[in-house]
Amino acid sequence: MDKIDETARRIKKLEIQGATSIAVRAVESLRDDLLAADSQSTAQRVLAEGVKKLVETRETEPMMRNGLRYLQKNLSGKWTSFEKFSAQVEKASSEVLEFYDKARKNIVKIGSRRVGDGDTVFTHCHSSAVTETLIRAHESGKRFRVIQTETRPRYQGRITAYKLVEAGIDTTMIVDSAARHFMKEIDFVLVGSDAVTSEGNVINKIGTSQVALAAQEARIPFYVLSTLLKFDPVTIHGEFEAIEERNADEIWGTPPEGLKIRNPAFDVTRRDYIHGIITEEGIISPHSILEAVQRHYPWILV
Amino acid sequence: MDKIDETARRIKKLEIQGATSIAVRAVESLRDDLLAADSQSTAQRVLAEGVKKLVETRETEPMMRNGLRYLQKNLSGKWTSFEKFSAQVEKASSEVLEFYDKARKNIVKIGSRRVGDGDTVFTHCHSSAVTETLIRAHESGKRFRVIQTETRPRYQGRITAYKLVEAGIDTTMIVDSAARHFMKEIDFVLVGSDAVTSEGNVINKIGTSQVALAAQEARIPFYVLSTLLKFDPVTIHGEFEAIEERNADEIWGTPPEGLKIRNPAFDVTRRDYIHGIITEEGIISPHSILEAVQRHYPWILV
Amino acid sequence: MDKIDETARRIKKLEIQGATSIAVRAVESLRDDLLAADSQSTAQRVLAEGVKKLVETRETEPMMRNGLRYLQKNLSGKWTSFEKFSAQVEKASSEVLEFYDKARKNIVKIGSRRVGDGDTVFTHCHSSAVTETLIRAHESGKRFRVIQTETRPRYQGRITAYKLVEAGIDTTMIVDSAARHFMKEIDFVLVGSDAVTSEGNVINKIGTSQVALAAQEARIPFYVLSTLLKFDPVTIHGEFEAIEERNADEIWGTPPEGLKIRNPAFDVTRRDYIHGIITEEGIISPHSILEAVQRHYPWILV
Amino acid sequence: MDKIDETARRIKKLEIQGATSIAVRAVESLRDDLLAADSQSTAQRVLAEGVKKLVETRETEPMMRNGLRYLQKNLSGKWTSFEKFSAQVEKASSEVLEFYDKARKNIVKIGSRRVGDGDTVFTHCHSSAVTETLIRAHESGKRFRVIQTETRPRYQGRITAYKLVEAGIDTTMIVDSAARHFMKEIDFVLVGSDAVTSEGNVINKIGTSQVALAAQEARIPFYVLSTLLKFDPVTIHGEFEAIEERNADEIWGTPPEGLKIRNPAFDVTRRDYIHGIITEEGIISPHSILEAVQRHYPWILV
Amino acid sequence: MDKIDETARRIKKLEIQGATSIAVRAVESLRDDLLAADSQSTAQRVLAEGVKKLVETRETEPMMRNGLRYLQKNLSGKWTSFEKFSAQVEKASSEVLEFYDKARKNIVKIGSRRVGDGDTVFTHCHSSAVTETLIRAHESGKRFRVIQTETRPRYQGRITAYKLVEAGIDTTMIVDSAARHFMKEIDFVLVGSDAVTSEGNVINKIGTSQVALAAQEARIPFYVLSTLLKFDPVTIHGEFEAIEERNADEIWGTPPEGLKIRNPAFDVTRRDYIHGIITEEGIISPHSILEAVQRHYPWILV
Amino acid sequence: MDKIDETARRIKKLEIQGATSIAVRAVESLRDDLLAADSQSTAQRVLAEGVKKLVETRETEPMMRNGLRYLQKNLSGKWTSFEKFSAQVEKASSEVLEFYDKARKNIVKIGSRRVGDGDTVFTHCHSSAVTETLIRAHESGKRFRVIQTETRPRYQGRITAYKLVEAGIDTTMIVDSAARHFMKEIDFVLVGSDAVTSEGNVINKIGTSQVALAAQEARIPFYVLSTLLKFDPVTIHGEFEAIEERNADEIWGTPPEGLKIRNPAFDVTRRDYIHGIITEEGIISPHSILEAVQRHYPWILV
Repeated sequence: MDKIDETARRIKKLEIQGATSIAVRAVESLRDDLLAADSQSTAQRVLAEGVKKLVETRETEPMMRNGLRYLQKNLSGKWTSFEKFSAQVEKASSEVLEFYDKARKNIVKIGSRRVGDGDTVFTHCHSSAVTETLIRAHESGKRFRVIQTETRPRYQGRITAYKLVEAGIDTTMIVDSAARHFMKEIDFVLVGSDAVTSEGNVINKIGTSQVALAAQEARIPFYVLSTLLKFDPVTIHGEFEAIEERNADEIWGTPPEGLKIRNPAFDVTRRDYIHGIITEEGIISPHSILEAVQRHYPWILV
Repeated sequence: MDKIDETARRIKKLEIQGATSIAVRAVESLRDDLLAADSQSTAQRVLAEGVKKLVETRETEPMMRNGLRYLQKNLSGKWTSFEKFSAQVEKASSEVLEFYDKARKNIVKIGSRRVGDGDTVFTHCHSSAVTETLIRAHESGKRFRVIQTETRPRYQGRITAYKLVEAGIDTTMIVDSAARHFMKEIDFVLVGSDAVTSEGNVINKIGTSQVALAAQEARIPFYVLSTLLKFDPVTIHGEFEAIEERNADEIWGTPPEGLKIRNPAFDVTRRDYIHGIITEEGIISPHSILEAVQRHYPWILV
Repeated sequence: MDKIDETARRIKKLEIQGATSIAVRAVESLRDDLLAADSQSTAQRVLAEGVKKLVETRETEPMMRNGLRYLQKNLSGKWTSFEKFSAQVEKASSEVLEFYDKARKNIVKIGSRRVGDGDTVFTHCHSSAVTETLIRAHESGKRFRVIQTETRPRYQGRITAYKLVEAGIDTTMIVDSAARHFMKEIDFVLVGSDAVTSEGNVINKIGTSQVALAAQEARIPFYVLSTLLKFDPVTIHGEFEAIEERNADEIWGTPPEGLKIRNPAFDVTRRDYIHGIITEEGIISPHSILEAVQRHYPWILV
Repeated sequence: MDKIDETARRIKKLEIQGATSIAVRAVESLRDDLLAADSQSTAQRVLAEGVKKLVETRETEPMMRNGLRYLQKNLSGKWTSFEKFSAQVEKASSEVLEFYDKARKNIVKIGSRRVGDGDTVFTHCHSSAVTETLIRAHESGKRFRVIQTETRPRYQGRITAYKLVEAGIDTTMIVDSAARHFMKEIDFVLVGSDAVTSEGNVINKIGTSQVALAAQEARIPFYVLSTLLKFDPVTIHGEFEAIEERNADEIWGTPPEGLKIRNPAFDVTRRDYIHGIITEEGIISPHSILEAVQRHYPWILV
Repeated sequence: MDKIDETARRIKKLEIQGATSIAVRAVESLRDDLLAADSQSTAQRVLAEGVKKLVETRETEPMMRNGLRYLQKNLSGKWTSFEKFSAQVEKASSEVLEFYDKARKNIVKIGSRRVGDGDTVFTHCHSSAVTETLIRAHESGKRFRVIQTETRPRYQGRITAYKLVEAGIDTTMIVDSAARHFMKEIDFVLVGSDAVTSEGNVINKIGTSQVALAAQEARIPFYVLSTLLKFDPVTIHGEFEAIEERNADEIWGTPPEGLKIRNPAFDVTRRDYIHGIITEEGIISPHSILEAVQRHYPWILV
Repeated sequence: MDKIDETARRIKKLEIQGATSIAVRAVESLRDDLLAADSQSTAQRVLAEGVKKLVETRETEPMMRNGLRYLQKNLSGKWTSFEKFSAQVEKASSEVLEFYDKARKNIVKIGSRRVGDGDTVFTHCHSSAVTETLIRAHESGKRFRVIQTETRPRYQGRITAYKLVEAGIDTTMIVDSAARHFMKEIDFVLVGSDAVTSEGNVINKIGTSQVALAAQEARIPFYVLSTLLKFDPVTIHGEFEAIEERNADEIWGTPPEGLKIRNPAFDVTRRDYIHGIITEEGIISPHSILEAVQRHYPWILV
């Protein structure tokens, strides 16, 4: 399980980050270690333990979990030969990677249409889907401004800043707590997503729900870019989506003794604050999320 | 104008900060330079230029401006002798400093009564009035928790953390954008103020209005500690309270070329989000601010 | 139609109450009287008249109506023999009873997962699904508090109190009008349902909508436990769900002459106040109700 | 202190109830016992102990407290003779009783003007000011309907029902939790008050705040009848108005062992839900309460 | 393309107006010109150019566009003979016209059930579906009032007034800006629709969203009558529904020089303001619109 | 009473319109007819009957009523000579006219400061105070846009358009029902007022409250220009401000027989929708209106 171990280590250290990158690399490493197995029984062990190891790297990553489970489901039967098993590993992993790839392409295409010439778009944190969407809209000739947060504690907003400025987009950075102050200049908010629940709520970087609240207060449309593959099926069965709590020293390396520090990585934005989720199917109401998953990836729900 | 120059320099460099400290030191330096004048005409020049110099150090400081103007008003007549003028300088500056001192003591006393045993109090940024109030409540035997933000870009929340932890208060720090995520644990919000307008709105550290919005969404009381001396009379005459914009490098020292950075120091919290302003008169509705100023400091309004 | 007559009488007298009990007993009595018929023509008459009689016992009971209609639909054709008819009576009634039973089991299982250790849960009236859910969560080792209303005019909250206290759950009773006063202590609201409409609204015991409103005001999640079998198909075709009006003496036995008394048994909680409906499919947005019924019981909609 | 003892006993037993009756009787009993004293020193003791005893009878009664303190303030100096002291007792108690009487008359007169011909008015609990106001409006020839709650746990709504029906007013009683269900039929809500705070909030019978919330949701005006003498000066100095918690057996005489029961007598309706307070000065915004008290009874605030 | 040219001309001149009339006449004219073609190649050209010409007459008419595209889709293959092609023209156009006809009949039937005896219904502009629904409810014996706007700039409310008064319905006209003033008298709002988006929003006559806002503020149900055939599939793919801007002289024929005039014909009412959309399937939540279209007209979405 | 008769006639015919013009001309005509009287007894009769006649011209004009009553109050005593009486007529009428004049000047000065360079201001109907304020801001060098309604039924928006375009201000007219559609482009709303109530509500042209609602929904500040002389003292004593209902033919000259038409001239905007009232004292919260009238025109309240 060399590839899996290496990938799990890098995900934990945030060397690999972003829901899509994590999901792609996790599926690839599982595929590679399965194909490298010398027997079907070894492979079955790799499958069970590898999925467990990868899933445990981050608490809030249904896109990875859904992909890994797709492999598990398609490899769970009895196999007449190791060759057939290997062929199925190839097939199933290709399918997952293509799901990921196609979903991304569609989301970016649809999302970029919604950016209007002359708009001011607000974004929070770094979402590769959001930056791709904005760059694509820019490349199609639209001229617009972006206001974006620095995104404490890990300053992912700086990654967003680098990418947008490099692409020639007019970009303004603010501190996270200035979101409401600048809301009146905004035409619409566009953020990414780490998970979507059966109620239609979106889990994304801490602070997202506050931006959504300020947007709603000022009647500013709030859109989420999210593949349906980020739907978390445990939520339909009664569990809450877990919210990863990260290390305190991300916030303050040398705090006074006795000070407590809380560092949740994500928060929950309720469906009522979301105008639309931009998915591979198109722009839908967040209330339709369950039906859209039923239409496109019914295997997620079983 | 040695004292004035020195004080103005230190205010600009944030070596002196906090509305009350700034106001006290400004009045003291003006008094000292007036008393050091060798003639009344020199003193009159010191008065005119000194006030101008001090006022220009920070845009959003009505408490300092009101104090300096109190001196101006009380020194504006004709004087039969320089001794009488000097005596009046002593008298008027003592009065202002006593206004400041008494106001603070009353606010802290009244505010500390509102903290309940077992409460969880939320605060944003560093306000010396808020920390004094919490420490006083703690000293009176009440046991409560505080959740407080780090307050980007200058991390004033760390000052708050040091003071509260030193006083033995159970304190938890979060990033600014996690305010809404923790709102459900809060019993009430308590923040300071830099200025209050004739409509009853409060100007305070950037991010305050976002906390107020999240508090309102969850039906959590939101209180502001503010002396009536922070009322800004220009607002009644149609001007907006100016919002100081600070240097971009407070946010990011080495941004990519082309990136714009906006760094307003304050935002506006509307009266509708404020349950009460805790003033030297007591806890009042923000809508009563004009009447309370009329009752206590009518000279502010002339 | 002995069984039907007896059951109808007991439902009217509230000796049988609760949507599920009413539905189960109505279906059983219809089945028994159909099986006791001595000819198919008698049975057909029993079917027509019995359904009518049972439906008329309570105005707001779609779960019963849906079950009875399932029998009607499955018995409406031509039958080659009375035996075949009887066999179909057995089959169809078993199916309905199993729908009821399975739905209940799933709802309780899913609902109990949503109760968190340390939570305070609010409930109104008596719902056997809610009490089962809470007891199951308690049995699974979770420790939580319940605050519940007495539920005028018939004090069904006392039944809830007896069951929860007996199960060892920490339970506090309040008067109905104190719901908002205690809302700040609540982590989530959990109530039952008598009917669900095509717009996603829930009909439940009078007072439910007021609790939902107070929960929304304080950003407290509001969940409804409801089988999809409580969906009322007349609502999709334009009719309103009827609201049963009960006898005035439930409120005051000896009112002064001339006083009018109104005693509606239910009210309507709009979908906007409902975070999720906990159904046999899982936790869904109330806006998905129509699609969920389509997926699970398409025959309800025909 | 015979009269005081007797009055205190009757207030505690609810034989005397309603803020105005309590206040009047408390002041009268203090006056009588003061006048019955045989020396000024006895009288001073009666004054100190009597006020304490009366104040302790009910936690939430500022109208009584304000009246008793008016006497204390006016009797606190040195007196040249017992006759002069007695004369001052007569004078001060007459003044208080006249404050009470005049306030009531004005409130009823002003309130009755706001009732419109053809209106449907909603009220909660029993307020003698509200019933007088409605009866006066009825006597002036206006024809309107009243919808009123039964008001658990002590059914004070039945007193309201008796009085209104006796006066020939078209009256409908509902259970407390049906308030929102009937809100659409209402033209305005009219309730009494037990206390008003410096922020402009109203303390009244448990359930009032829920009615106010439902009224606001449906854009129905919500008015409070309250003399300014119910303003509680402790609230301006940081204290909360105390909420009396009454005996559990008012709710359930024979609860199962282990069941907790909470029985607060009042709740707090925030100023944002109140269209106007109908006071002896006229109809004012609740935000003006502090100024109105300043204008009419400045001695309350000292 | 005589018929198409004539129809396009009349649509542009508003001689044909209303989404349904426009759609029916456009499909009929296309059919007629196709059948009049003397060869398949001519017909193919008529098809391509005719659809283009008709679509360009009005920007906001998905019902027409969906119908025309249905013909295109069903005529796009290779045809063995012109006869078969013509037969298919007949078949496909009949199908579309029947879709239109059936949808209307169902909507009117369902909508008329929702009108209650004694209700006051509010409507804006002229919608033939709304007037038919009201007339049908009236014919079924219900007695109700209608309040309706004059609907500037083209006074379509006068058409509504003529039809309702002629049918004997108690009708009151007001200016558009009086909608909120009369909202308290209303039981529910019923309007038509020009287009529905994938997020569940409704595009209708300018002013509709303002009525919806006022209805929501007063908790008045807001219903839209709309066939699912008005769903615009471009919205799911990221485009906004276009809002037609009409000529300035509809507002003011002789404005002073330099005055700008803006005259958008429609506005957008968000799903959050809509209680239900009354469609041919029944009354559904606007969030279900995408699923309802999937169920009934899947070809719209391809 | 020639002047009074003439003035009353012209007010009724709307030849004199606008609260200020009406008030000024009414006071002037009363003054002139009083001075023209040949004896004090004639003058007393002119005073009584003239005020009555003038007051009855329009229902919703407290500014006129307050001015006329000021004269009545100052002329109500006994006079030693007709000369003294006449002198007092001169004095009192001059005072009223100066109140009017000064108030207007201050309002325009303060209001014009609030208009910002680059703003888009929204206004409804024609208010001479609003147009003066905008023109003054324009003359001071600020460049801004105005969006304004046509204002049915009497198109007063056209007067506004003429004046603003003539002054060179960039002005856009829309129909009344498009207000919400354009709200996102607006920086603040500025309207006039006909009356202000003791609760802080504003009575202005029909449609104003709808604009206020749309502004609040989009977090757009809403300001009212109003002299404190428009405060109506009857509202504090329980009466509602009367809303004038005008002739139906203003809406439709030739309606079908049987059509009802309602034409209220004004509506009520509640204080919660108003950020500030721009008065001669300055910009105040609408909740302070009673206190501001107390400070400036205490005689209005007696």
